[in-house]
Amino acid sequence: MNGNDRRTLHSSVFRVLVAIVNLLKNKMSPPQLIMIIFFCLIWIGALFLSLPYSSSNGESIGLLNALFTATSAICVNGLVVVDTGSVFSTFGQVVIMIMIQVGGLGFMTLGVMVAILLGKKIGLKQRLVIQQATHSTSAQGLVKLSIYMVLIAFAFEMLAILLLTVRWHSEMGWGQAAYYALFHSVSAFNNAGFALWSDSLSSFVGDPIVNMTIVALFIIGGLGYIVVVDLFRKRSWRKLSLHSKVVLLGSGILYVAGFLLLFLLESWNPATFGDLNIGERLWAALFQGSTPRSSGFNTIDIGSMLTTSQFLLIILMFIGAASGGTGGGIKINTFVVLVLATINTFRGGSQIHAFKRKIGVDTVMRALAVVMSSLAVVLLVALLLTLSEGMLEDHFLEVLFEATSAFSTTGLSMGLTSELSPLGKIIVTVTMFVGRLGPLTLAFALAQKKHTSKIGYAEDHVLIG
Amino acid sequence: MNGNDRRTLHSSVFRVLVAIVNLLKNKMSPPQLIMIIFFCLIWIGALFLSLPYSSSNGESIGLLNALFTATSAICVNGLVVVDTGSVFSTFGQVVIMIMIQVGGLGFMTLGVMVAILLGKKIGLKQRLVIQQATHSTSAQGLVKLSIYMVLIAFAFEMLAILLLTVRWHSEMGWGQAAYYALFHSVSAFNNAGFALWSDSLSSFVGDPIVNMTIVALFIIGGLGYIVVVDLFRKRSWRKLSLHSKVVLLGSGILYVAGFLLLFLLESWNPATFGDLNIGERLWAALFQGSTPRSSGFNTIDIGSMLTTSQFLLIILMFIGAASGGTGGGIKINTFVVLVLATINTFRGGSQIHAFKRKIGVDTVMRALAVVMSSLAVVLLVALLLTLSEGMLEDHFLEVLFEATSAFSTTGLSMGLTSELSPLGKIIVTVTMFVGRLGPLTLAFALAQKKHTSKIGYAEDHVLIG
Ligand SMILES: [K+]
Ligand SMILES: [K+]
Repeated sequence: MNGNDRRTLHSSVFRVLVAIVNLLKNKMSPPQLIMIIFFCLIWIGALFLSLPYSSSNGESIGLLNALFTATSAICVNGLVVVDTGSVFSTFGQVVIMIMIQVGGLGFMTLGVMVAILLGKKIGLKQRLVIQQATHSTSAQGLVKLSIYMVLIAFAFEMLAILLLTVRWHSEMGWGQAAYYALFHSVSAFNNAGFALWSDSLSSFVGDPIVNMTIVALFIIGGLGYIVVVDLFRKRSWRKLSLHSKVVLLGSGILYVAGFLLLFLLESWNPATFGDLNIGERLWAALFQGSTPRSSGFNTIDIGSMLTTSQFLLIILMFIGAASGGTGGGIKINTFVVLVLATINTFRGGSQIHAFKRKIGVDTVMRALAVVMSSLAVVLLVALLLTLSEGMLEDHFLEVLFEATSAFSTTGLSMGLTSELSPLGKIIVTVTMFVGRLGPLTLAFALAQKKHTSKIGYAEDHVLIG
Repeated sequence: MNGNDRRTLHSSVFRVLVAIVNLLKNKMSPPQLIMIIFFCLIWIGALFLSLPYSSSNGESIGLLNALFTATSAICVNGLVVVDTGSVFSTFGQVVIMIMIQVGGLGFMTLGVMVAILLGKKIGLKQRLVIQQATHSTSAQGLVKLSIYMVLIAFAFEMLAILLLTVRWHSEMGWGQAAYYALFHSVSAFNNAGFALWSDSLSSFVGDPIVNMTIVALFIIGGLGYIVVVDLFRKRSWRKLSLHSKVVLLGSGILYVAGFLLLFLLESWNPATFGDLNIGERLWAALFQGSTPRSSGFNTIDIGSMLTTSQFLLIILMFIGAASGGTGGGIKINTFVVLVLATINTFRGGSQIHAFKRKIGVDTVMRALAVVMSSLAVVLLVALLLTLSEGMLEDHFLEVLFEATSAFSTTGLSMGLTSELSPLGKIIVTVTMFVGRLGPLTLAFALAQKKHTSKIGYAEDHVLIG
C-alpha cells in the first residue's frame, strides 16, 4: 500500500463515518441512538467476555453468562453470575473495567451531549437545565463542559487510586495494589459495584481509608454531571440551580436516613453486627446506608440482614441516585418532585414550589410517568422471577430485592443472582438494560409517532381517593 | 313523669341535638366529622363486643380483640383475630352485622351526604361529579337519591337472602339458613368479608348459587353509590357520566385479568387446585380474582396459593374498588387516571382524556397524592410489622400482604392475622382505620390551615427520569 492508496482509504473511511453520523442524525431520535449504542456495546463486550482468554481457567464462561456480565458492566449494575475476581483472567477483568468506564462516565458525558446536540423531542427541557447549571449556551460550550466533567472524574479517580494503592500495598505488593486500586476506583466512581473480592468489600468493614475513598467516589458519581459541574463552577449554595439544590437536599436526607435506620436496626442483628465493635458498626451503617444510592458494593452480607433492613434497602434502591449521573432508580430529583406535589395537594396549595421556584405541571407529569412505569416494570419482573425461579418455593423478598436491584442498576443481591435459572438470567439481563436506559428514554425510543390529538375535549370530572 | 314534663324533656333533647349539629357544622370540616363519627362508632362497637354476653362461652374476648374486630367491622375490612362463627354469640354476631351495615351502606350514603351538604374544602368537585351522575342539584334531591340507593341496596340484599336461604336450608334448617343468609348477604354487599365459617366460603368453592350471589353482591357494592345510581337512572352506556364509565371499564379489565391470571397460575398448584375439577377451578378463579376488589371472602386458602398469585393479589388489593362504594384501596378510578396520565406523557400528548372528555390537571394531582401517600402508608406498615412480628424471622410476603389487606379494607390474609402480637394488632387496627378513611380525607381532617402561598414564584426546571 503506497501513500496515495492510504490517503484514498483514509478519505473513504472518513466519508463512511460522516455518512453513518448523518444517517443516525436524520433517521433516529436521541433516545433511539442511545438505546442502539448501549445495545451494540453490550454485544461487543459479551463477545470479548465469552473468549476463553477472558477466563482464568481458559474455558469460555458461555454466551449467556458473558451477556449477563457485559450488560451488568455497561449498565454499571454490578450483579454477577460468576465471581469477577476468580473466574475472569486479568484480560477479562480489564474488559469489564473498560465497559464500566464507558457505560458510566462515557454515557454521563456523551449521552447527555447526544441528547443535547441532537435533541428535539426530550432535549429542550434538559438543555435548559444544563444551560442554567453551566451558563453555557452553545454546542461548543457543552462539549467543553463534558471535557471538564471527564477531567474532574479522572482527578477524583486518580486521587482514589493513589490512596487505595497506599492502603493495600502492604498486603499484596505495589503492582497488585495499584491494579486493585484502579479497578475498584473505576467501579466505585461509576457506581458499578463490581469487586475483585468474592465478598465485595466485607474485609474492610471498619477500614476508614477504604470506606471514605469508596463512599466519596460513588457519592460524587451518583450526584451526576450537572450537579458536580454546577458545584465546581458556583461554589455557593445560593447560586446553585434548582436541580442541584433539589438533588443535594434529597440525597442528604436519604444518606442520613439510611445511615441512622440501618445503624438502629442492624444493632439488633447478631448475624451482621454481632462481631463488630462500635466503630466498625458506624462505618458499616454509613457504607450500607449510602450504597443503595446505586453503588452496589457491600461491607456486610445483604442476605444476613434483618428483613426490615432488606425491605428498607429495596425502597432506597428504587429511589436511586440523581439524573445524569452513574446511578439509577427513579432518581432522587423525580422523588423529591413527587413528594412536593403530594404535599402541595394535601395543603390545598395552588403551585408546587421549592427554594422559591415554581415547578411546572409538565415536570410533575413526567415524574408521575416515571414512577408509574418504573413500579410496573419492577412488579412485573418480580412476578416473572417468582415463576422462573421455582414457583412452588417462597423466596419472595429475594426476588423483589433482585428485581429492584436490577432495575435501579444498584447491583446488591441477597444471594439469588448466583442461583438464577437460565430464564431468570435473561429476565434480569433485560431488566438491567431497561433500568439503565430508564422508562422515559425507552418509551421515547420505541414510540412510533406523536399521537397528539388535535381535538380539544371538554373537561369532565372523576372522583379521586 | 306527666305529659308536660315529657314535652319539656323532648323539647330540650331536640334543642341539644340541634346545638350539637350546629356546633359540628361550624367547628368541623366534613372530613373531620367523618373521622370523628367513625372513631366513635368503633369504640361503641368495641364496648359491645367486649361484653361477656357477646362471646359464645360467656367470657369477654378482651378490649384489644374487641377493638380490632369493631374496627374491622365498621371499616368493612374483614380481618379477624378471633373466629367470628365460633367465638362470638349470636348477639355478638348481630352487633358485628349491624356495624358492617352502618360502616358500609350507612357511610356510602350518609358519608357522601355529609361531604356534600357541609362541603366546602373537598366538596365542590365531588358534588359536581355526583350532580352530573344523578341530575340532581338540590340538597333535597341528594337526600332523596341516598334513600334511592339504600332501597336499591336493600332490594339486592333481600334477593340474595332469599337465594341463599333456599340454598342452605337443607343443610341447616330454615331458621339457621335464613340467619346465615342474612349475615353473609350484608357482609358481601358491604364488602366486609366477615364469614361465619372459619374457612370463609371454602366449602362452596364450586357452588354456582353461592358463588354467583356473593360475587354479584360485592361487585355492586364495590362499584359505589354514584355508579349504581347512574346505571339505574340512565340505563345506557352513552349517557353515563365519565366517572361511571371510568369505573366500569377499569373494573371490567381488572375482573377479567384477575380471573384469567389466577386460573392460569393456580392450575400449576397442587395445594389449591389439586382436588378440584375444571368447573370448580373456573368458579374458584372467578371468585378469587374478584375478591381483591375489597370483598375479602375466600373459597381457596390464600396461604396455600403460589407466591406469584399472592403477589398479584397484593397489587389488585392495593388498587381496590371504586370511590364512594363499600370497597377500599387507592380506588380503580384513581388508578385509571394515573395510567391515562402516564400514557399521555409517553405519547407526548398535551391533554389527558378518556371517552372524549378531558381530565383536568388537578384531578391528576389528587390521584398522585393518593397513590404516593397510600404507598407510603402500606410500606411503613409493612416495615413496622416486620419489626413487631419477630424481626429475626422472614415472613415478608405475609407481612406485605397483611399491610395491603388492612389498608385496602380487603380483609384477606395469608394467615398472619390470627398470630399477630398485641403490638401487631394495634398497628393493623390503626391501618384499617386509616385505609377506610383514605389518605385524602385523613389529610384534610388533620390539616390545620390552608398554607396557600400568595407569592407567585418564577418557574424553574428539574431533570426527571
Ligand atoms: K451499581
Ligand atoms: K373487606
